[in-house]
Amino acid sequence: MKLPGQEEFEVSSACENVPTGELENGPGSCPSPDGTSDTDRGDRGVPTDPLLFIQLNELLGWPQALEWRETGRWVLFEEKLEVDAGRWSVPHVPTLALPSLQKLRSLLAEGLVLLDCPAQSFLELVEQVTRVESLSPELRGQLQALLLQRPQHLIQPTGTRPCQGSAHPREASHSEEAPLKEQRQNPLRRKLPPGAEAGAVLAGELGFLVRPLGAFVRLRDPVVLGPLTEVPLPSRFFCLLLGPSTLGRGYHEMGRAMAVLLSDRQFQWSVRRASSLQDLLAALDAFLEEVTVLPPGRWDPTARIAPPKCLPSQHKRLLSQLREVKGPSAQHGALAEDRHGHWPHVPSPELQRTGRLFGGLVQDVRRKALWYTSDFLDALHPQCFSAVLYIYLATITNAITFGGLLGEATDGAQGVLESFLGTAVAGAAFCLLAGQPLTILSSTGPVLVFERLLFSFSRDYSLDYLPFRLWVGIWVATFCLALVATEASVLVRYFTRFTEEGFCALISLIFIYDAVGKMLSLTSAYPIQSPGSPAYGCFCQYPDLGGNESQWKETEPKDRDDISSMDLGLVNASLLPPPECARRGGHPRGPGCHIVPDIAFFSVLLFLTSFLIATALKHVKTSRFFPSVVRKVLGDFSSVLAMLLGCGLDSFLGLATPKLMVPSEFKPTLPGRGWLVSPFGANPWWLSVAAALPALLLSILIFMDQQITAVILNRAEYKLRKGAGFHLDLFCVAVLLLLTSVLGLPWYVSATVISLAHMDSLRRESTACVLGEPRSFLGIREQRLTGLVVFILTGASIFLAPVLKFIPMPVLYGIFLYMGVAAISSIQFTKRVQLLLMPAKHQPDLLLLRHVPLSRVHLFTAIQLACLGLLWIIKSTPAAIIFPLMLLGLVGVRKALEWVFSPQELLWLDELMPEKERNIPEKGLEPEYSLSGDTEDSELMYQPRAPEINISVN
Amino acid sequence: MKLPGQEEFEVSSACENVPTGELENGPGSCPSPDGTSDTDRGDRGVPTDPLLFIQLNELLGWPQALEWRETGRWVLFEEKLEVDAGRWSVPHVPTLALPSLQKLRSLLAEGLVLLDCPAQSFLELVEQVTRVESLSPELRGQLQALLLQRPQHLIQPTGTRPCQGSAHPREASHSEEAPLKEQRQNPLRRKLPPGAEAGAVLAGELGFLVRPLGAFVRLRDPVVLGPLTEVPLPSRFFCLLLGPSTLGRGYHEMGRAMAVLLSDRQFQWSVRRASSLQDLLAALDAFLEEVTVLPPGRWDPTARIAPPKCLPSQHKRLLSQLREVKGPSAQHGALAEDRHGHWPHVPSPELQRTGRLFGGLVQDVRRKALWYTSDFLDALHPQCFSAVLYIYLATITNAITFGGLLGEATDGAQGVLESFLGTAVAGAAFCLLAGQPLTILSSTGPVLVFERLLFSFSRDYSLDYLPFRLWVGIWVATFCLALVATEASVLVRYFTRFTEEGFCALISLIFIYDAVGKMLSLTSAYPIQSPGSPAYGCFCQYPDLGGNESQWKETEPKDRDDISSMDLGLVNASLLPPPECARRGGHPRGPGCHIVPDIAFFSVLLFLTSFLIATALKHVKTSRFFPSVVRKVLGDFSSVLAMLLGCGLDSFLGLATPKLMVPSEFKPTLPGRGWLVSPFGANPWWLSVAAALPALLLSILIFMDQQITAVILNRAEYKLRKGAGFHLDLFCVAVLLLLTSVLGLPWYVSATVISLAHMDSLRRESTACVLGEPRSFLGIREQRLTGLVVFILTGASIFLAPVLKFIPMPVLYGIFLYMGVAAISSIQFTKRVQLLLMPAKHQPDLLLLRHVPLSRVHLFTAIQLACLGLLWIIKSTPAAIIFPLMLLGLVGVRKALEWVFSPQELLWLDELMPEKERNIPEKGLEPEYSLSGDTEDSELMYQPRAPEINISVN
Repeated sequence: MKLPGQEEFEVSSACENVPTGELENGPGSCPSPDGTSDTDRGDRGVPTDPLLFIQLNELLGWPQALEWRETGRWVLFEEKLEVDAGRWSVPHVPTLALPSLQKLRSLLAEGLVLLDCPAQSFLELVEQVTRVESLSPELRGQLQALLLQRPQHLIQPTGTRPCQGSAHPREASHSEEAPLKEQRQNPLRRKLPPGAEAGAVLAGELGFLVRPLGAFVRLRDPVVLGPLTEVPLPSRFFCLLLGPSTLGRGYHEMGRAMAVLLSDRQFQWSVRRASSLQDLLAALDAFLEEVTVLPPGRWDPTARIAPPKCLPSQHKRLLSQLREVKGPSAQHGALAEDRHGHWPHVPSPELQRTGRLFGGLVQDVRRKALWYTSDFLDALHPQCFSAVLYIYLATITNAITFGGLLGEATDGAQGVLESFLGTAVAGAAFCLLAGQPLTILSSTGPVLVFERLLFSFSRDYSLDYLPFRLWVGIWVATFCLALVATEASVLVRYFTRFTEEGFCALISLIFIYDAVGKMLSLTSAYPIQSPGSPAYGCFCQYPDLGGNESQWKETEPKDRDDISSMDLGLVNASLLPPPECARRGGHPRGPGCHIVPDIAFFSVLLFLTSFLIATALKHVKTSRFFPSVVRKVLGDFSSVLAMLLGCGLDSFLGLATPKLMVPSEFKPTLPGRGWLVSPFGANPWWLSVAAALPALLLSILIFMDQQITAVILNRAEYKLRKGAGFHLDLFCVAVLLLLTSVLGLPWYVSATVISLAHMDSLRRESTACVLGEPRSFLGIREQRLTGLVVFILTGASIFLAPVLKFIPMPVLYGIFLYMGVAAISSIQFTKRVQLLLMPAKHQPDLLLLRHVPLSRVHLFTAIQLACLGLLWIIKSTPAAIIFPLMLLGLVGVRKALEWVFSPQELLWLDELMPEKERNIPEKGLEPEYSLSGDTEDSELMYQPRAPEINISVN
Repeated sequence: MKLPGQEEFEVSSACENVPTGELENGPGSCPSPDGTSDTDRGDRGVPTDPLLFIQLNELLGWPQALEWRETGRWVLFEEKLEVDAGRWSVPHVPTLALPSLQKLRSLLAEGLVLLDCPAQSFLELVEQVTRVESLSPELRGQLQALLLQRPQHLIQPTGTRPCQGSAHPREASHSEEAPLKEQRQNPLRRKLPPGAEAGAVLAGELGFLVRPLGAFVRLRDPVVLGPLTEVPLPSRFFCLLLGPSTLGRGYHEMGRAMAVLLSDRQFQWSVRRASSLQDLLAALDAFLEEVTVLPPGRWDPTARIAPPKCLPSQHKRLLSQLREVKGPSAQHGALAEDRHGHWPHVPSPELQRTGRLFGGLVQDVRRKALWYTSDFLDALHPQCFSAVLYIYLATITNAITFGGLLGEATDGAQGVLESFLGTAVAGAAFCLLAGQPLTILSSTGPVLVFERLLFSFSRDYSLDYLPFRLWVGIWVATFCLALVATEASVLVRYFTRFTEEGFCALISLIFIYDAVGKMLSLTSAYPIQSPGSPAYGCFCQYPDLGGNESQWKETEPKDRDDISSMDLGLVNASLLPPPECARRGGHPRGPGCHIVPDIAFFSVLLFLTSFLIATALKHVKTSRFFPSVVRKVLGDFSSVLAMLLGCGLDSFLGLATPKLMVPSEFKPTLPGRGWLVSPFGANPWWLSVAAALPALLLSILIFMDQQITAVILNRAEYKLRKGAGFHLDLFCVAVLLLLTSVLGLPWYVSATVISLAHMDSLRRESTACVLGEPRSFLGIREQRLTGLVVFILTGASIFLAPVLKFIPMPVLYGIFLYMGVAAISSIQFTKRVQLLLMPAKHQPDLLLLRHVPLSRVHLFTAIQLACLGLLWIIKSTPAAIIFPLMLLGLVGVRKALEWVFSPQELLWLDELMPEKERNIPEKGLEPEYSLSGDTEDSELMYQPRAPEINISVN
């Protein structure tokens, strides 16, 4: 049972109109220090109060036509009524003038303060509030009538056209206690969490008063005060600020000040517990102590400040309050948690060595077994349906592209069909059994590179490829199982951002290089004809007169006339296009016969088009255009849509572009092999032992590839509840590797890009998204069902083969380029490389640059670039086979960097490695506390510490 | 003689590193209400004080190693020392905590305040400041020694690498009175205006003090206080805030508060004139009255707010100060100016009707004659050189593209050569004689459309085109002279934004449509060969055996073998490419002979490439990358660079793409015509009279095209000093039209796009660009020389003809597309069309939307769209000849809109027309005053009122 305001409430349709792209703070982009969102849930260890909706009703029209009108509303931020335009402003940070706060203070100090007022209706409340000595009975009656007058609200329906809430704007009908229909139907209500309360501030100038009238009421039991507030919530607070005309707009500003005060969490906390006027004033003074002041002249006071992406934690402010009330012991637990939140590198239980053989695996299985039932029950949410569709499309796109590349790399030993089958089998098994079922298995770039190397090696030495590969697979599985047994996965703690970025950048560069390279190879396969080139012309030569000329003449006399061979004066020849010519028994002759014109440039066009469209559609998600449903679809399916458009363009023009070659039958792509690979084939027996050497390298590669991805997926900022399973994951990968080797299917490990997209599509977010609050990220729907369904669908797609052969290769290369560019753009390394090109004064105000000298940042980047260059060179030389070792070498380089950079610098540029963490005094690790003092201690909370490889490719 | 701080000082090289793209506020984007920049020039009517550079030196290292370090500096905004990173932060709006201001106030109230201190050196000053009772002589000595210790500055050279200002950071050398070398070489000094003064704030915790020590000193005569401030400016203010450790970082915050106070213009004003402690405290209280307060919890106090693009006017604040001093009469003049600034539609003297024949022209000539000498002298500035280069390249690009289009439109009656010649002659003459010499004459879209219609009409009726055109020209000149005589140009006041936008959108759409249409027509000229198409093959047929076969055999026996005709078994035929075949006397035969492969797609590629590169390079200007010189070059020459790249790509592949046809000799493009057009040619005599009918339409078109552009160029926000010359301009256009008709050259009117680019390249800006201040726009270098030189160069470019024929047409079409897209993107109409596609809650916070209901905005946009659609339809039908009339009809539609929209709405959506202005009470025209009251009255100042057709195409 969820308590109101205590737990998140589910994403409802009411929130779907919020511009997710702008508000969305991706995992890691805005980590709150204690792992909680302080807006709709209470901070841990601090009593939780209901959310407050505050409304300012202003008295307008003095002296002719008095009316109450709602001119402002607050939950977290302010929304102002644009009177002329008849719409609510965008939510913005409220700004006040200092005098209005001071005037409010003195008005409250002299005015009426009723705490725990027992009024049960608006009428009772009005009577209580107007029971002031300074008012004559007559004036009191007038005032009461005025207060009971129904206020005008601007209730904005979900559509575009706002309408006046009150049907007869100027009709001074007295308010009844029952809320109006338009109030009950106010869409705003659905966006406020259950249990929310209202606070109403009534302010304005009222000429018949001789002295200002201030009243502040806290109701003992919140009641719905009729049509007073636009949302019929029970009101807890009521504040009246009226006075003679001397102050002019002063009352409006005082009313705003009161509303802003009430919208402050700490003021709310205090005033809910206040027992006297002094408490109220003390709360106001405490508020004043903490305000931020902007000097006049350097800031335009009418400018509206957009809600910040990250709000400061209210934790500390509330704790200081709590300390006064409950004493220092109350805050200890919360502070400890705070520390833990700051400190992502405290080894998590998954990564603690047990010291027993297979101890980690056993622990993983035990831990995950507890969640197994919920792994299916948690999938029962509509969001999972769209995740399945999205990831399914991404998976088959991936299977097609990798299948095509594998087919080329292995000369058909594997192909698209194997890719589909293997993806389906391995992926589904992994999702059923693995420790982290959100992972999507896929062929990955490094494994593809290795497979290509292995194939060219076996071709060069005339080995039977698949049997050789089988033995490599057997050895790799053995090695990996040994790694599982020895709990080697705990070493992932040494994979810092440096390693992750090097790895990610390399994968991305391989993607980009391959895509462009393949594209260029197409233009040599379909050469461009320059005007002077001798390769011109082609004609169709018929067989000799002495041969079967008669047969020709008899079968196709009419066609020969059509081609107008006779007109041209040709003997035994026509100008039939080559395929037609061959079909009719002739021979195409001439240098131009093998040239298909226009294909090269058209391929380039298709390549660029699909790349640019995918990129452009991706950006639609964060644009202002279109309703959010449309934006989400366009953004989420950008690459699928780009592919479809490319295919459409291709088939519209009907040119003979190279297409994806897919088998039309369900049988291995390589002719003549069965589904089971024979263990030796044509290879000598000792090759099965020698295969251990490449297998060792591949094991390192698989370990690195699998675990770096696993580290990224299990980051703290994704707030996974069910924990990781590094050992179990590796175990599953090893077993599946054995299986796919036996069946001659591709090898699979976790795919970073697509797994992150999977998690991204399963985000849980809070719904209190009204009035500018950034949606807070609550976690991921951790379950096994979406992945499972995706892979079952992938398996069923083998029967799509007849459709798939319409996909032109240039389009696939374009999508590849897009994936590579998207992945490399997302890492901090790229941002730092960009810094190299920026003059110092134009650099963005990154926290990193506030704390590390620029020359050190550049040095770190240069070292990463050098490592990357070295890896690239090794990959391109015959030494490429030792490439996995070099990948491991990255960890060593990172370790060596500790001699070059101080721990502080590494903390900002990278993360710390396990030993360093232990050896260094804590103070040294928190540079922001030691040097910059109080005013900056919240900086760290907003620093995007995590290596934000938030690649969100679909 | 310029007084310091009174006039702008010229743009110096020191400022060129500022990211102009970001800081640049284009003309009209940030109009200050009184037409002045309040930062480096005094507000009119208000005494001017020198600019103040404030530095905070903080005492660090208590108790072990005391040292003074500069940790903050202020001119307009705050720059903070990033201690760890060793760099200055980006300039930002300073934020303070309220308590630090209050503590500062009490410290000052109890402390030492010396106003008009006569100290002549730092030593004297230190002695005066430490003469406090609470200090024992021993402590006083210690304190004096400490104060005289040399502070550390971080002096950042212009390059990227910062270096420590002090050579020996920890050396406690006593400060000498002479400024250090690094201070004198501080690049910051060059960015501060001459006459600037310094203010030094020294703050910190000093344990040996028993009670806080506060001192505020205003020096009678500012002196350079040795190495105290990083820039050796004479110091006017000195403030000391020291105390025991109880406050911790409190002294730092108090020091910041003092610095922020001193950086406030109004506080400066008061404190320069203060005669007692009370005055000082009153100034502080006045500051507090005006601060903007941000509530805690809704704003992160450590967040740095980027300097706003528009600062609020200090006018009002200073005036209120002034009122107290000088009484109300002092402000009257300034307020009147304020009103004038608000009110762009008060008819300017250029547009007041004299009532005499040619009265306007005479007035224009008289007014401009006064400036004629300065029109040449004002050009003596290096900026003009780069403007010439930029506009020259833009002009020849324009001349080439329009020349090519005109050649096609008139079947060679005009061509590129005529375009160059005419541009040079007409442009140069206009720059020498016209009223607004910043205008660049060019062929324009509408005139091109008209010329095309005229040509097809005369072709359809078999008229002799050029003589017919001559008569049209004669009539148009006559009509235009009549318009000049009757002072018709005063009617331009009826051209509101509605008309301008309709006109601009139409021109842009014609550009875009033409570019895409031309591109598509290329693909039909060079068809794509689909594989099954029968148009396949081509061979070279030799003449009959009975003919000159012998000659063939004799001349080229070897070649025939090369083509392997014999191998192919061909008789009397070979596979030579068609051009080669024809050259050798054979006949290309076959359906494929006229097909040039690959050209179609390659053209599409060239088209897209040049468009995308031009667009991308344009954006480089506002990016963070590269030094600003590089960015400026790439951005300014984007279209020229895109053209060069396109040509390079084309010649690299060497395909037979269609190229720009240019004459190789200096003679009319049409063969057989002389430079003078014969008055009748083959036409009947009455045609010279009948030509008056099309001439009437063309006159309207010329008038509209010329005057709309002139209105845009002479906008108030460009701050032109020498005034416009609407009548004189039209007179010049009419005379030149006659001239070009006689010579058979194209017709010219003012070109909006290129003229705005011209003005943009001649912007004068203030240099005080240090510390985040937006550069203020001072005006345009109004002179005749740049235009004149541009057109002389253009004329000389006719000899470039041999180079120009390497330009492929698809590249030119791509540049055309770019120009069209750039122009249509720049108008507010486009932004409102985009609003149609945005859900209401995602719309940007435009001031327009704050004041006009969305449905009314949409209605206005829809009406504009309908007008545009109607214009487009008329342009496409045979009725196109009445198109100029329809353009005039736009003014009528706008007039009719007054029945649909209220004046208030029209004020926000458009502008008001002259009558309405006069007839409506003033209050109704200032909705922001009447409704929203005090807090928003500065909104209007920041509203980009002008129809920002800031097309900045190069």
